[in-house]
This record gives sequence, structure tokens and C-alpha cells, in this order.
Amino acid sequence: MEMKITPIGIIHSPFREKDECPIQPTYSKNASGSIEVFSEYEQGLRDVDTFSHIYIFYLFDKAGEIKLVRPTFLDDNPHGIFASRHPCRPNGIGISVVSLISRCDNILEIKGIDVLDNTPLIDIKPYIPRFDVFSKASNGWVGSKNWRPKPQGRE
Amino acid sequence: MEMKITPIGIIHSPFREKDECPIQPTYSKNASGSIEVFSEYEQGLRDVDTFSHIYIFYLFDKAGEIKLVRPTFLDDNPHGIFASRHPCRPNGIGISVVSLISRCDNILEIKGIDVLDNTPLIDIKPYIPRFDVFSKASNGWVGSKNWRPKPQGRE
Repeated sequence: MEMKITPIGIIHSPFREKDECPIQPTYSKNASGSIEVFSEYEQGLRDVDTFSHIYIFYLFDKAGEIKLVRPTFLDDNPHGIFASRHPCRPNGIGISVVSLISRCDNILEIKGIDVLDNTPLIDIKPYIPRFDVFSKASNGWVGSKNWRPKPQGRE
Repeated sequence: MEMKITPIGIIHSPFREKDECPIQPTYSKNASGSIEVFSEYEQGLRDVDTFSHIYIFYLFDKAGEIKLVRPTFLDDNPHGIFASRHPCRPNGIGISVVSLISRCDNILEIKGIDVLDNTPLIDIKPYIPRFDVFSKASNGWVGSKNWRPKPQGRE
């Protein structure tokens, strides 16, 4: 079974090049951006502004070669792609949790964005702490890694 | 720009019919299941078992008609599809956070599963509290809704 994914909008961010993108939204809390939902989907946004945070789903449309095991931004040791958030993965779909600042018709103003400008948006779902917060979850191999600048040239 | 999504595995769960599926994993903490990752992707699982929780991404392959505004499991009042987790959405992709109990080769034993048996898996990403916990996020319109049994016949 295959499924065809078609963008429902575009994400606008301050990041024009991969090297400028933060590793995760947590490291770009103040980066502002906006989401333009195509007008034919605008109705689907009803009540989205009752939430302070949303998941955005998008395509890694600029990702390079898919590798199942590779070093990541946070570690020079290789890890499996399903143990990382690396963009070069089978079915290149990314998610980020961002703050929803305001909505005007089909435009959402957001903060804490970490994706490239003009990234294709494919879905929005509400972030609901009642369902989504697992404070006691482990940080896995990432737990022992400190934040660092993104290694140059690393996809 | 379009993207073709191809399953990388199959999710096995105790739920054979839509009516049996819990509303969210939070309400099925003890439901056990397993994930069978197709052997050609097994390498990508390296180190996934250092995490206690993972996001699983899957296709809503049994979803019915897409509507941009509709009542949901938790509320008879209609909400926009992007303000809900309802399966009948443009680009029918779902996510759940589940506990990862163990891994044996290409099989992951999991708990807290809320999807139909044989749902096509399309991605796994680690759940990392450092990146994913936003305790102060609002619960939006869902905040005032109590859990209830799924209304009969509601998709």
C-alpha cells in the first residue's frame, strides 16, 4: 500500500540555508515564522487557535541521501535513523512542536520554528499535554549529549 | 510537490475493529502490541532501544470520508480537522507515543498502543522529553471535555 502526500500549505521561516536551521525547536524558541495554509483547507483551522502549541508535519524536501545508519547533529557516532530525527530518512516527514501566537484567516503566526523557509506543510495537529507529555520518558542516547553547533557540511 | 509514502513495517495490536480502538494511547496504557519493521529497514533500528518511548507514524488506511469540519470522539460540536486528531483528514497520517518495552531484531514490543491491527507503519522517531515536553501548553477546546466511550458509529 502506498499513499500520495500533497502539501496543504507552506511554512515561512527565517532560515534560508540548512546550516542556519537549529537542531530542534527547543533551540530556536524565539525564531518567528508563519504558516500559510492553502485557502481550500482554511475551514479545517476552525478552533485551532484554542491551542497554545501545535504539531506541524512537513516534508523534508531538501534532504539528501537516505542512510539507515549515520552520525547525527548531536553525535559523531553513528545511530540508526529510527533512533534519530535526522531528515534523510525513508518517508521524509518531519514534525515540530511550535507555539501558536495568532491566527488570521489562513495564516498562523508561530514561534519556535526550526525548519527551512518554504518547507511544504502536510498536516497540523493540536499538541495536547494530556495526551503528549511523558515527563518520565528517557532521553536515550541523546541524554548524554550536550548541545553543540551543527557540524559543518553535515546534512 | 508530491511525495509517495511507502510502509516500512506493520503495527500489530489487539484492536480488530475501529469501535474497539481507544481514543488516545493515554487511555490504553496497558494495551500491548508489536511493531514489525520490514527486514530491509532493520539496520535503522540501531540504538532505538535506548529510548523508553517512541513516536510511531502510520497511515490511516481504513479512514472514511475526509471532512474539514466535523464532530469528534470527544465532542459532538464540530471542530476543524487541524484542531483535532481525527483520522479522516487530508494526508491521513497518524502519530502515537508508545512505550518501547523491548527489541528483538526487527520486532519491537510496545505498550500503550491505540491503532488498528495491521496498520501500515511509515516512520519511527525517538520521543525525547528534552525536545517534546511542553507541560505548560494549553489543552485547547479538549481541556473542558471529559473522556467518554466512543460514540457508536462515529468514524
